[in-house]
Amino acid sequence: MTLADDVGTEAVRYEVTDAGVAVITLNRPDRLNSWGPDISAGVYASFDRAEADPSVRAIVLTGSGRGFCAGAYMGAVRELSAGIDEDTDVSKIVGERHPHFLTELRKPVIAAINGACVGIGLTHALMCDVRFAAAGAKFATAFPRRGLIGEYGITWILPRLAGWGISADLLLSGRTFFAEEARELGLVKEVVAPEDLLSRALEYAEDLARNCSPASMAVIKRQLYGDANDNVVDVSDRAEKLMHESMVRPDLVEGITAFFEKRPPNFPSLKEG
Amino acid sequence: MTLADDVGTEAVRYEVTDAGVAVITLNRPDRLNSWGPDISAGVYASFDRAEADPSVRAIVLTGSGRGFCAGAYMGAVRELSAGIDEDTDVSKIVGERHPHFLTELRKPVIAAINGACVGIGLTHALMCDVRFAAAGAKFATAFPRRGLIGEYGITWILPRLAGWGISADLLLSGRTFFAEEARELGLVKEVVAPEDLLSRALEYAEDLARNCSPASMAVIKRQLYGDANDNVVDVSDRAEKLMHESMVRPDLVEGITAFFEKRPPNFPSLKEG
Amino acid sequence: MTLADDVGTEAVRYEVTDAGVAVITLNRPDRLNSWGPDISAGVYASFDRAEADPSVRAIVLTGSGRGFCAGAYMGAVRELSAGIDEDTDVSKIVGERHPHFLTELRKPVIAAINGACVGIGLTHALMCDVRFAAAGAKFATAFPRRGLIGEYGITWILPRLAGWGISADLLLSGRTFFAEEARELGLVKEVVAPEDLLSRALEYAEDLARNCSPASMAVIKRQLYGDANDNVVDVSDRAEKLMHESMVRPDLVEGITAFFEKRPPNFPSLKEG
Repeated sequence: MTLADDVGTEAVRYEVTDAGVAVITLNRPDRLNSWGPDISAGVYASFDRAEADPSVRAIVLTGSGRGFCAGAYMGAVRELSAGIDEDTDVSKIVGERHPHFLTELRKPVIAAINGACVGIGLTHALMCDVRFAAAGAKFATAFPRRGLIGEYGITWILPRLAGWGISADLLLSGRTFFAEEARELGLVKEVVAPEDLLSRALEYAEDLARNCSPASMAVIKRQLYGDANDNVVDVSDRAEKLMHESMVRPDLVEGITAFFEKRPPNFPSLKEG
Repeated sequence: MTLADDVGTEAVRYEVTDAGVAVITLNRPDRLNSWGPDISAGVYASFDRAEADPSVRAIVLTGSGRGFCAGAYMGAVRELSAGIDEDTDVSKIVGERHPHFLTELRKPVIAAINGACVGIGLTHALMCDVRFAAAGAKFATAFPRRGLIGEYGITWILPRLAGWGISADLLLSGRTFFAEEARELGLVKEVVAPEDLLSRALEYAEDLARNCSPASMAVIKRQLYGDANDNVVDVSDRAEKLMHESMVRPDLVEGITAFFEKRPPNFPSLKEG
Repeated sequence: MTLADDVGTEAVRYEVTDAGVAVITLNRPDRLNSWGPDISAGVYASFDRAEADPSVRAIVLTGSGRGFCAGAYMGAVRELSAGIDEDTDVSKIVGERHPHFLTELRKPVIAAINGACVGIGLTHALMCDVRFAAAGAKFATAFPRRGLIGEYGITWILPRLAGWGISADLLLSGRTFFAEEARELGLVKEVVAPEDLLSRALEYAEDLARNCSPASMAVIKRQLYGDANDNVVDVSDRAEKLMHESMVRPDLVEGITAFFEKRPPNFPSLKEG
């Protein structure tokens, strides 16, 4: 697959690399991929496809053009704002799934933040498991500057990524910050030159696809988010049960054997599910 | 208002800038503003006034002289220590409100930590939303070095700002550290030259007062601390309700209109409450 | 005590310095102190001894040779993997206590991570209160690369030390990282030249032993981990009770008196317990 050649006309593009990484690209560059019904529908369909496809072991989420996702589609918002009231159907803007659906997938999701990452776009990026950002990419929660509130779980995930102090700053001020500061604040793992962003995110995702057990990653992801509000005793007791369950999967023997034979492992795919 | 001219004789000074920022200054510089009944009474009265005043949109908390707040007033502590027992009324030192009252305010609180910030003074600083510190300012929990325990919620807020590892170091050792390390550890947002500290904190607070919806900030602050121990599904569901409530406030239309007209927003004040 | 002279033949060595620090050393350097029944039994006995001994006020955990603890003893794992199933007794590898027993001790535990710190070895290190690491020491969760899951509480403690984003990276990828990155990520307090590691960890632990109230440290440690999943109101209410309890201990008067007399405090030891 040559990614650059596969320019579609859809709101969201979907491709799978030979190494088993699905690349999901928001594709309304003319409006900085701002989040509207076309993009949300395409995103949900793409993630469903990636989850169901046994050949996909990791997922990269990115945007085409200068933006990753510059918030809610303000055209739609503006139109609504004429006649909005308590009964307005917000899902017309936000979509039918809350962004935390990303944390509930079995497969790891890597965000390649190529540009503007604002509001509901930032919330989605923060619900991915790991984030790479292009140097210079612009970030903001923006909510209080528009009369909005902490949208759809950002008040849950942001403090858990960066702590409550940094979150208070970013959420109460809605100020703009850039990729370099996002890395210092712990919101992105690495800042990469824009031209290298996708290849770096793919390199990371393909390492997961090749060398990590899909079954292990699915369990670990469930532990990571599912254990977030529990106590250590129960978490550790559940881990013991999960250890026992891992004993009957072929992955453990393959993982240990490959380790001793100093060769790459050959883990089974997740079943369609 | 010229802040420098307004030197009072009260234990706590209260001023409001033209931009709608209340500046609350601990004012017992001779004892490094250590926390006693005079200061606590003045602090509570000042915050009540700021919360009730519709013209106030953000609050700065700072200290006069060389200290921010160097812990409990040791004069009082020493006196008590002669005859302390289980029935001692600790509120004589600590005051009638637990420091987390700061997280329950509707308005954002910015700490400008001008100097020594120790013990119960540190606990109060950590319960503010955002912290700026003067270069060289001295910090310590100090508790285990005095035979004390983790006072009044510091074992809740410190780990949520800096994680459990850094908190274990600072709380179990009670060691001294300085503003620069406090920033590295995530406890303060910025370190500023002492002579620029108040103007930087004011600049930040005045941006909130001018450009952020008071209603939005009140909701976001409640989300940030109130959602701390909840799960993402419930947090996100509540956010959806809060979105609907934001639809009937004039702030949203003003925020979006100002955005499209590329002008500063003109958000309504919070009612006295 | 000259640590270097005290080379034992046991799987775990136990020594106490004159300042009241117990040094517990994993001592199977030929297998990088990988975690097996011999080491786990020795570790439990050593920590029990340190907890019971009134002269011990802080504990350092380290390893001999090039490794701290390079994960589960793969000899045992390999043997098991021939015939493992749901009924396999995992405690043969992991030991009878879950690693969070370290957080439940009354005395502070300082890890001096001298080398490879992987899998269950990393989980134990993260359950210590404070971590120092030798420059160049190698870290990895490794779990998904072996077909394993997040073992025994690591999905609880790692996010609380470094946040959920860094944890997702380290747990889903199982990638190798080194002491310097571990420090940047907030997993270790300081990186020290290998030859200075033990003396630096001892210096830190001896400061606790000499200058911090053992009773205070025991209470603070319980607060720190015990309050982790609670809300700020209850945490602060409990702290008020603990304040009252501290009033009847001699530690408070001694701490305040020593402070005013500018001399080191002389706190009572914890009773055998």
